[in-house]
Amino acid sequence: MSFSFDLLAKDGAARAGLLHTAHGDVPTPTFMAVGTAGTVKAMTADAVRATGANIVLGNTYHLMLRPGAERVARLGGLHKMMDWSGPILTDSGGFQIMSLAKLRKLDETGVTFQSHIDGTAYHLTPERSMEIQYQLDATITMVLDECTKFPATHEEAAVSMRLSTRWAKRSRDAFVRREGYGQFGIMQGSTFKDLRQESAATLSELEFEGYAIGGLAVGEGQEAMFEVLDYATDLLPAQKPRYLMGVGTPDDLLGSVARGVDMFDCVMPTRAGRTARAFTSRGIFNMRNAKFQDDSRPLDEGCPCLACTRHTRAYLHHLFRCEEMLGPMLLTAHNLTYYQSLMQGARKNILAGEYTTYCDNVRDGWTQGTEP
Amino acid sequence: MSFSFDLLAKDGAARAGLLHTAHGDVPTPTFMAVGTAGTVKAMTADAVRATGANIVLGNTYHLMLRPGAERVARLGGLHKMMDWSGPILTDSGGFQIMSLAKLRKLDETGVTFQSHIDGTAYHLTPERSMEIQYQLDATITMVLDECTKFPATHEEAAVSMRLSTRWAKRSRDAFVRREGYGQFGIMQGSTFKDLRQESAATLSELEFEGYAIGGLAVGEGQEAMFEVLDYATDLLPAQKPRYLMGVGTPDDLLGSVARGVDMFDCVMPTRAGRTARAFTSRGIFNMRNAKFQDDSRPLDEGCPCLACTRHTRAYLHHLFRCEEMLGPMLLTAHNLTYYQSLMQGARKNILAGEYTTYCDNVRDGWTQGTEP
Repeated sequence: MSFSFDLLAKDGAARAGLLHTAHGDVPTPTFMAVGTAGTVKAMTADAVRATGANIVLGNTYHLMLRPGAERVARLGGLHKMMDWSGPILTDSGGFQIMSLAKLRKLDETGVTFQSHIDGTAYHLTPERSMEIQYQLDATITMVLDECTKFPATHEEAAVSMRLSTRWAKRSRDAFVRREGYGQFGIMQGSTFKDLRQESAATLSELEFEGYAIGGLAVGEGQEAMFEVLDYATDLLPAQKPRYLMGVGTPDDLLGSVARGVDMFDCVMPTRAGRTARAFTSRGIFNMRNAKFQDDSRPLDEGCPCLACTRHTRAYLHHLFRCEEMLGPMLLTAHNLTYYQSLMQGARKNILAGEYTTYCDNVRDGWTQGTEP
Repeated sequence: MSFSFDLLAKDGAARAGLLHTAHGDVPTPTFMAVGTAGTVKAMTADAVRATGANIVLGNTYHLMLRPGAERVARLGGLHKMMDWSGPILTDSGGFQIMSLAKLRKLDETGVTFQSHIDGTAYHLTPERSMEIQYQLDATITMVLDECTKFPATHEEAAVSMRLSTRWAKRSRDAFVRREGYGQFGIMQGSTFKDLRQESAATLSELEFEGYAIGGLAVGEGQEAMFEVLDYATDLLPAQKPRYLMGVGTPDDLLGSVARGVDMFDCVMPTRAGRTARAFTSRGIFNMRNAKFQDDSRPLDEGCPCLACTRHTRAYLHHLFRCEEMLGPMLLTAHNLTYYQSLMQGARKNILAGEYTTYCDNVRDGWTQGTEP
């Protein structure tokens, strides 16, 4: 099976597609659950599958530190290690080096940093990042980039984007091609249209198997993000999948799909699940709220997850109140199921040419709140 | 279905039986996973079922404080709340009041104490404990007793045991009989044979559906515990199930089954699972040990649990090193599966008349350690 993308339908700018990989197909639009350190937090691999997930994400930075890329390779790769036979996308490590590592130093060759865990020094280059992702056996490898900070001046954004472009070329050269595996370039350029254009044009020449939009969801807000997406997706090859990195809320996803994005990842549904926040068809609930203590209704009527089909809001409230691990376990499963359902609904309605109506209905639902 | 116990076979003093209840049958000997606050920690109900568990335990003290017995009743009972349709045994609350509550005051009527969570005052009597367990919808209700401290003088143990006996009578009177539900009396008497005899004789007259042996595993050590069991089980009605409360290690279980015990509960496999200790056929492993970091073997060859069939020792080590919740989740599932397998093996070998050989083989296995 070669790595390829079938664009099946468009509804406005929204797209429905099917991504083929060595590890299985991914219907798009799709949300990728984040499996930071080789585990989607609070979830068994079976539980992740039960949410409807088709692809998960692993973090090069975290896996490089623990257990180490060479060790993952010796254990047969990330799929085998975490019992996930489906596609895995790994990021390049660039983002966490900016957000987590200590004493980082950036130069043309790459980035030198100290582990946030024990201070061990690492030098990460585009070539080393590609090698690590190869050792992890990533289905989709991301180029090493510098995620431009926000806000940035035009000058700062240009310098940063051009460094990322040079690293993208080196990443492309270092990528080991294998049947059914792909590599994505990452567009940068902050909120500047001319820089986004320049980034997209250069990356397109490298003929990646897919393209990510980086440097968004870094503090600019939804309005500014959508303004960039309004033109940015059109700058990318139409026949390749488009991945918006690190996004976002359910509303961010609906709006970004409407602007031509196919793939997402975010820690939001998993992190929220561990902190008692539930994403539902009636909006966001805080399950610690005492109003749920006698609420015998399911968390979200019609949701097929374990939390909603087997338990009550009162029980979920009780679990969080007692700080029982089952609370995060059930709510993470629910939130991921909700994100998957949201994307499945989007796909179905794009194929039917009814995506706008779908979004209107979903957003109406969010205003309903917890009461009938 | 009436609540009854079929004694199917004896091998020495060891017994194989079948307990019939309103919520299903329980082959004995059996180990009951502890679901303190309406959840077996780190486990979904499906995961508990997958360990081979037939019956679980709930704690009256914890459930009385949170979410409250009346609330559990409004939610349809503990089975429905925690998605466990099988039998549930609830303790009476006496033990945690001794071990956890503040400012407890014991008198003939019962015990007054303050919640360890928020200091709220409660008065627990035999009658109130029975009412709570009724509200929880316990398949097996335990009488309220005072768990005699260890060491105790003969005088202290006699006074304590006789109070427990008077409470047992009141508990029996307050128990609401329902088809398929049962109530167990609790023998006390510390390490004094005459007191154990007196306790057993009085309790037997009350014709409980089963009998527990209390006041052991409270610091006396395995040797002293076995010395009591050597005579204590014979003091109890042969045709009723016998439950040794709060026990224990795998070796405690084997030795207690050999002395005629049918049922056990203990937090050990679940607590150990959360702290990286694995019970295996080759002994106890500490999964944080660095020797496992490249160990690609299953935790325990032949074990049917998720941890052993899908993952490596190296992955479990990695999960605990990173403090990922999946570590406790997988290791709790494994430890409970190990305890269930141990009891299933015991039952099979008692039925075959080979229990002594079984114990020898299992104990031999424990000496093998982690290396092949």
